[in-house]
Order: sequence, then C-alpha cells, then structure tokens
Amino acid sequence: MKNVGVLLSGCGVYDGTEIHESVITLLALDRNGVAAICMAPDMDQHHVVNHLTGQTSEEKRNVLVESARIARGEIMDVRKVRTADLDALIMPGGFGAAKNLSDFAIKGNEAAVHPEVRRIIAEMADAGKPIGAICISPAVLAKVLEDRHPQVTIGNDLGTAEAIESMGGRHTVCDVTDIHVDSENKLVTTPAYMIGPDISKVAEGIEKLINKILEMI
Amino acid sequence: MKNVGVLLSGCGVYDGTEIHESVITLLALDRNGVAAICMAPDMDQHHVVNHLTGQTSEEKRNVLVESARIARGEIMDVRKVRTADLDALIMPGGFGAAKNLSDFAIKGNEAAVHPEVRRIIAEMADAGKPIGAICISPAVLAKVLEDRHPQVTIGNDLGTAEAIESMGGRHTVCDVTDIHVDSENKLVTTPAYMIGPDISKVAEGIEKLINKILEMI
Repeated sequence: MKNVGVLLSGCGVYDGTEIHESVITLLALDRNGVAAICMAPDMDQHHVVNHLTGQTSEEKRNVLVESARIARGEIMDVRKVRTADLDALIMPGGFGAAKNLSDFAIKGNEAAVHPEVRRIIAEMADAGKPIGAICISPAVLAKVLEDRHPQVTIGNDLGTAEAIESMGGRHTVCDVTDIHVDSENKLVTTPAYMIGPDISKVAEGIEKLINKILEMI
Repeated sequence: MKNVGVLLSGCGVYDGTEIHESVITLLALDRNGVAAICMAPDMDQHHVVNHLTGQTSEEKRNVLVESARIARGEIMDVRKVRTADLDALIMPGGFGAAKNLSDFAIKGNEAAVHPEVRRIIAEMADAGKPIGAICISPAVLAKVLEDRHPQVTIGNDLGTAEAIESMGGRHTVCDVTDIHVDSENKLVTTPAYMIGPDISKVAEGIEKLINKILEMI
C-alpha cells in the first residue's frame, strides 16, 4: 500500500487548514486505495479567528491539536515523520499554510517557513518524490524550493502570483477545476478555494491533483 | 434551486460535528445542484476535547462559532431558520449531536434535546419534509419524533440501538455503505463513522442518503 503524507496547519480556513480541501484530499486518497499519513507541526497557531464574525479572538490554540480534529485523532507531529516512509506529500490550503506553516500572509516573499515543514518539503524534493499543493500552499513550496524555480499555480490572484515569482517561482494562471504540473520538480498544484467558490469545483481540481500525484509515484 | 438545511453541532468528532461526514454532505449536495443552508445552535459546547490526546480541556467554545469553521463562515443560528425556507434537513453525526444538540451521550433514552433543534426537527416532520440523519444523530431524531415511532439505523451498536428502541424508535442493523429508509416518516439514516472505518465507505453511505433525500423532496 502506498503512503501519502497530508500536511495540515490547524482546523479552519481563516487560521488553519481549509477543512473542505483536507477532507476531499483524504477521501480521494482512500478511494484510490492509498493510506493517508496526517501530520502537522506542534506549535501555537499564529492566532485564532472566530469564523462566524471574522474577528481575531484572544484564545491560544495549538496547530497539531486542532489539526487532529480533521484527522480524527490519527495524526503525527511532523518532526517525527521520516521522508523514507512517504511516497508523496500533499499540502491542503487555508490561511494556516500562510500563517502557521509559514508567515507568507504577513511577510510575503520574505516569509520564513517552519523548520520541520521546510525539512520535509526539501527532503521530498531531494528524493524525487511528488508533492501536491492546494490553494495558497504552493506559496510555501515556492519559498522552500526557490532554488529549483518551481512552476506552480494559486489560481489567478495577481498579488500572490507576483510574490511567488519574486521568490524564484514561476506562476501559471489556472482554473479551479484544473491542475498545473511541474514535471521536472514533480509538483502538482490546483487553485481550490483561491478561486472556488463551489465545493464541487474545488473537488474536481483536487481529485485531478491526487490522480496525477499517484501517477507520478 | 432546492435548499437543504445542514444542522451542525461544533467542529470535530469528539465534541462537535464529525468533520468528514459534514464535508461529504456539503459536497454531495453541491454536486446535485442543491444549496446547503448550514445552521447550528448558539450555545456553549458541552465540553472541549483535545482530539490529539482524547482528554477534556478547560476551554470554553461556542457551537455556532466552531460550526462556522466547517461552513467557511456561511452559517445561521438555527433559531433564525424557518422551516418554510427548507426543502429537507440533514444532520451529520459526531458526538456534538449527542452532547450539544442533545445530551443523549450522557442521559441515553432520557435525553433532552436543545429547544430550537427540537423545533426544527418537529416542524420538518409536521410539514412532511424529508430528514436525513447520519452516524449517531438518528438518536436525536428518535427522541424528538418518539410519538411517530421512527425507523432508523445507527449501524450495529447494540447499546445505542436499545436506547433508541426504548425511546419509541425502531432500529434496523445496516452496513456503513448502505441506508435505512422510513418512507412513512420520510427519514433516511446511515451509520457512517458509527461503523466506518474507511472514509470512502462512509462517503458511499452518505451519498446514497443524499440521493434518497433529494428523491423524496
């Protein structure tokens, strides 16, 4: 059985992983007979957003603990995940990728990436194993793999595309139901809720991404 | 366009709505061209469970605010939802149905149901509109509709089935990939993660449930 890592960043689009994108990923992997290995960094969230009002709250939450909600408790600290145990890695989106896994939402092209997130992405790329990135998470890929000039899409948002290009990435506009493939670096990306807005269209893009990643293993 | 209510109870299997069941429901509705109207009661959660350790935490969280994570902010207080605006109602599972929407997890067949949850279920049934209930949430249906002797399934858990029967319901054993239909009361139920364990099997049952509910509208 193939093992595909799913790197989560909390639980909820505004301060963590985009929940729909994560579940659609887990469902597509299981429908393809692949085991999902959920993981997240053990760290405080950048902040907590009340998803009803959009306001920042005073609470503290932990990225690994909140990600465990999506994973139904079956999740590893990314620090303990060995690249040798994975055949591929998928990064769902949500602001957690740009606020927790990295600070791209605050610092743009000068973003720092969590050291264990950086390690696993770099090791997967060095091992020639495919990486799929959804929604805003291709920005994290672009930062970590900047020396490889990765080709990615985050949809059609000009500001984000420019930030990716200024980090050394190459950005291609892409529809929500489609994927962009960087065959050289074995990267597959899809815009998902960077465009949306329909969950069925988001799912169409993510399912294509998973199919392509599994072809590349 | 048809409008189907989705009644949430928090965000996470151990203290709120089961996340996978909710997203699979939202995806199946959108793929059928149906609008989902997400709703939840505005109340404190019974408690907060750390989904990594399984331990209860000291935090306070609100059911409507946490449910908004699954709904990407597009959610109504169930108190403001009029039955006249809905063509059907779906209740995903998770312990939130048995700890927040009701206290079935604590009191079994003597459970009380949140008054607004009771209202919307009773009004839908009185209006002859179909209700779908997933995982443990058929227990809430059985309590509210006890005078109608509803036929439901929660899978094959004997203790839960006995509690349902002692509330006046009738329980049928059912596989995770299948549904049970009560044509007289227009109820459709599926075991989902009461059996699981594979998300693809859970999805198969929920997709059948949604298809049947849409046929009944």
